Amino acid sequence: MKILVIGGSGTIGRKVATTFASRGHEVIVAGRTSGAITVDIAQHASVEAMFAQVGAIDACICTAGTGYYGPFAAMTTEMMMPGIQGKLLGQVDLVLTGLRYLKRGGSFTLTSGIAAQHPARNGTCVAMINGAVNSFVLGAAQEMTDERRVNVVSPGLVEDSRERYGAFFPGYNLVPMEKLVNAYILSVEGAVNGKVLKVYS
Amino acid sequence: MKILVIGGSGTIGRKVATTFASRGHEVIVAGRTSGAITVDIAQHASVEAMFAQVGAIDACICTAGTGYYGPFAAMTTEMMMPGIQGKLLGQVDLVLTGLRYLKRGGSFTLTSGIAAQHPARNGTCVAMINGAVNSFVLGAAQEMTDERRVNVVSPGLVEDSRERYGAFFPGYNLVPMEKLVNAYILSVEGAVNGKVLKVYS
Repeated sequence: MKILVIGGSGTIGRKVATTFASRGHEVIVAGRTSGAITVDIAQHASVEAMFAQVGAIDACICTAGTGYYGPFAAMTTEMMMPGIQGKLLGQVDLVLTGLRYLKRGGSFTLTSGIAAQHPARNGTCVAMINGAVNSFVLGAAQEMTDERRVNVVSPGLVEDSRERYGAFFPGYNLVPMEKLVNAYILSVEGAVNGKVLKVYS
Repeated sequence: MKILVIGGSGTIGRKVATTFASRGHEVIVAGRTSGAITVDIAQHASVEAMFAQVGAIDACICTAGTGYYGPFAAMTTEMMMPGIQGKLLGQVDLVLTGLRYLKRGGSFTLTSGIAAQHPARNGTCVAMINGAVNSFVLGAAQEMTDERRVNVVSPGLVEDSRERYGAFFPGYNLVPMEKLVNAYILSVEGAVNGKVLKVYS
C-alpha cells in the first residue's frame, strides 16, 4: 500500500511510519517542519498541495495536531482556535479533501485522545477537540463510498511521552507504544470502519 | 432561582422556559431574534453584554445553535464554521464568560444531541459539534469551583420537531417533550455535575 503519514515527526507518527515501512508498505511522511512533504493541516491550500503532490493513496494516517492546555478560568474561545483549526478541522479537511485521492478500499485514520472521555485538569479544550474528532468519524464513516473507511485512534498517555507530559496526567496508565501502533495497523490493514479505537492502557 | 434561558424562542427553549416559570423560578429568556434579551452567542461581545445586563444568576440554560446539514462529499470546513462559532464555541463561551455571573451552587446546562453517538446521513458536522460539546462538559465540570456545576442535555428527535425534521431521521425514536424537559430540570434543580444527559427515546 501507498500510505501517507501526516505528523510523521512526532513521537507517535515516527513509530507509525517506521512500522508500516517495516511491514512492506510505501510510506510517505508529511509534517509541519520535517518529512518528505511539508504541510500545515490548518491551511486548506497546504492540504490541497500535499495531496496533489502525493497523488492517489491507499491510506492516510494523521497523528498531527495539539490543543490548548491551561487554567480553565482564564481560558477564552480565542485560545482554543489554533487547536480547532489544526487538530480538529485540519483532520476533518484531510478526509474531505483526501477523498478525491483515496483509492477504492482505502482508509483514513485520524487521532483523538483519552481526554474525550477522561479529561485531565486544564485539558478541557483538548477534551472538546478529541470528542469532536471521534463523533466526526462516526458520521463520516457512514458517508464513505467505494469500500473506503475512516477510523480514529484514541491514545492514552503513551509511555514514550511520560517525561514530557506525565506530570500533567497523574493517575493515567501508560500505553505501550507497540500496542498503540497496533490500533493504526488494525485501522489500515483491517476491515473496521467508523470505529473509535481506544488504547487507554 | 433566577434562570437565564438562551434560545428561548426555539421549540425546546420555549418549553424549558415555561416549565421553569411554572415551577416558581424567575426566568429570563434570551434569543437571537426574540426574548427579553437579544443575543448572538457566536459573538463574544454579545455574550458579555447579555450577562452584564442580566447580572448574577443561579442557572444558565442554552438550547440555541444549529449546525450544517448536507451532502458529505461536497462539504467543506468553511461550511462548518457557523455551527462551530455558534452551537459549539457559543455554548463554550457561555460557560467561560458566564462563570463570572453564576452564583455559588449555580449550574450551566448546555444542549448537544443524539448525533454525537448516532449521526444521521448528511449530519456529520452536527455529530462533530455535539461530540465536542459533550466532551467539553466532561472537562469543564472538573474545573467548576464554589459548588457550581455544568451538564449537557443530549436530545434525540423531539416529537414536536417531527414535521420539521422527521424526514431527515428515519428510524429515530421520537422523544416526548416532557421527558426531554425533565433532563433540564434534573440538571438545574438536581445535584448532577459533568453529566451527558441522554434523552434518546
